[in-house]
Amino acid sequence: NAVFSLNDKSVINGVATHSSGNHAQALARAGRLRRVPVYIVMPRNAPRVKINAVRNYGGIITFCEPTLKAREETLKWVIKETGSVEIHPYDNYRIIEGQATCTMELIEDAGAPDMILCPVGGGGLLSGTALAAAYFSKNTEVIACEPAMADDAYRSFRAGRLIPGVNPETIADGLLTSLGERNFPIIRKFVKDIVTVSEESIIEAMRLVYERMKIIIEPSSAVPVAALIENKLDVKGKTVGIILSGGNVDLKNLPF
Amino acid sequence: NAVFSLNDKSVINGVATHSSGNHAQALARAGRLRRVPVYIVMPRNAPRVKINAVRNYGGIITFCEPTLKAREETLKWVIKETGSVEIHPYDNYRIIEGQATCTMELIEDAGAPDMILCPVGGGGLLSGTALAAAYFSKNTEVIACEPAMADDAYRSFRAGRLIPGVNPETIADGLLTSLGERNFPIIRKFVKDIVTVSEESIIEAMRLVYERMKIIIEPSSAVPVAALIENKLDVKGKTVGIILSGGNVDLKNLPF
Repeated sequence: NAVFSLNDKSVINGVATHSSGNHAQALARAGRLRRVPVYIVMPRNAPRVKINAVRNYGGIITFCEPTLKAREETLKWVIKETGSVEIHPYDNYRIIEGQATCTMELIEDAGAPDMILCPVGGGGLLSGTALAAAYFSKNTEVIACEPAMADDAYRSFRAGRLIPGVNPETIADGLLTSLGERNFPIIRKFVKDIVTVSEESIIEAMRLVYERMKIIIEPSSAVPVAALIENKLDVKGKTVGIILSGGNVDLKNLPF
Repeated sequence: NAVFSLNDKSVINGVATHSSGNHAQALARAGRLRRVPVYIVMPRNAPRVKINAVRNYGGIITFCEPTLKAREETLKWVIKETGSVEIHPYDNYRIIEGQATCTMELIEDAGAPDMILCPVGGGGLLSGTALAAAYFSKNTEVIACEPAMADDAYRSFRAGRLIPGVNPETIADGLLTSLGERNFPIIRKFVKDIVTVSEESIIEAMRLVYERMKIIIEPSSAVPVAALIENKLDVKGKTVGIILSGGNVDLKNLPF
């Protein structure tokens, strides 16, 4: 959605980002469909599975040192050199709109559930989910689930102001980012609550989904399932939709 | 279907089998739903993931030596001791009917494809698939896919008579069995063709499904995808449905 809603002139030199998971792959694929170059800045220690996925979808990778500072600086340099446009992975309204389609499809396919559980990192998927639920089904509550070890969204939500995470460390590597400025107001308004879960439950939830549902998910996607395992929510008699957000995982290095 | 179509009297002492994959799990679950005991004979070297799955679904396991002879003898003994009824994993019309629902659902959900690809081992899933396709969509061709290293169905189909496999050895461990007597006539009548694939393509196909579709499949399920990788079929401009038949795989021991 973000790539296709730019006009021809602004997109002519391509798009760029320094995300390396879903966002990078989606951007690479959207860029190929729109026939514009896609520049992805990735830390040089990124897992091979992510590098291969981005390359297979046609992304042009620039490697950098594995720090946030190096990623941001390298991205600036790439944008300057190529004239491409940055597409932020979550703090971007067009990205939020795109993420909202997931809940739209969930409601189309399975009917509106009483509750939707969604992981939260930067808040792109969560704000899209909450907007879509509010729009398509007024009676559906959206609950965000976050690792206790990276609980900036939980704390920000409770405090009513953005509190960035400090050195978050969780196996759910897609949720290390802190809430975006555009995401937080939407989350405050449309998300019912945020709960946190332990690292152990995340791993247990991941294993359960692999073994019983046969779906490859990354630890970030297991976070809402972990909230159910921990009995953090009153779901008795309710229909619950869970957003499984991604499967970028190194199968040689599973945590169980 | 097999468990529920038995009358109360015949099912009262439970059901039994010596399969250890999908069939054992399905039987355990069906038995629990019908509140009858389910006895599963498994080789004592069966992967933990299969043992756990059967136990979780409530199956009662008897371990035996890892040979076909020991499995059959132990099953006979279990049936004698318990008065349970054997449910054969594929050479059974009720099982074939149950397997047919997969193609019924495929056609309901996605419309009738031009072609359906299905793996073949004992032929339970394949005969169900072929019957359902013939019943619900006359223009859909069913093609069976088999490992070249366990090609008894391919040879039987060509010869027009049942030729049991001799020491088949393939990574697709769900397809080691030879065609059943009840399955073969259905396959001859309703299956358009059988193609074989190499072990290398099976592994490549498995990896592709894991990394791009994020679905956990066992090697047996990758066999039809391997047929596409090998360009064994003329699929140009056609819609193709693929039956992914199972995901009983030890994630600690992937072939890639």
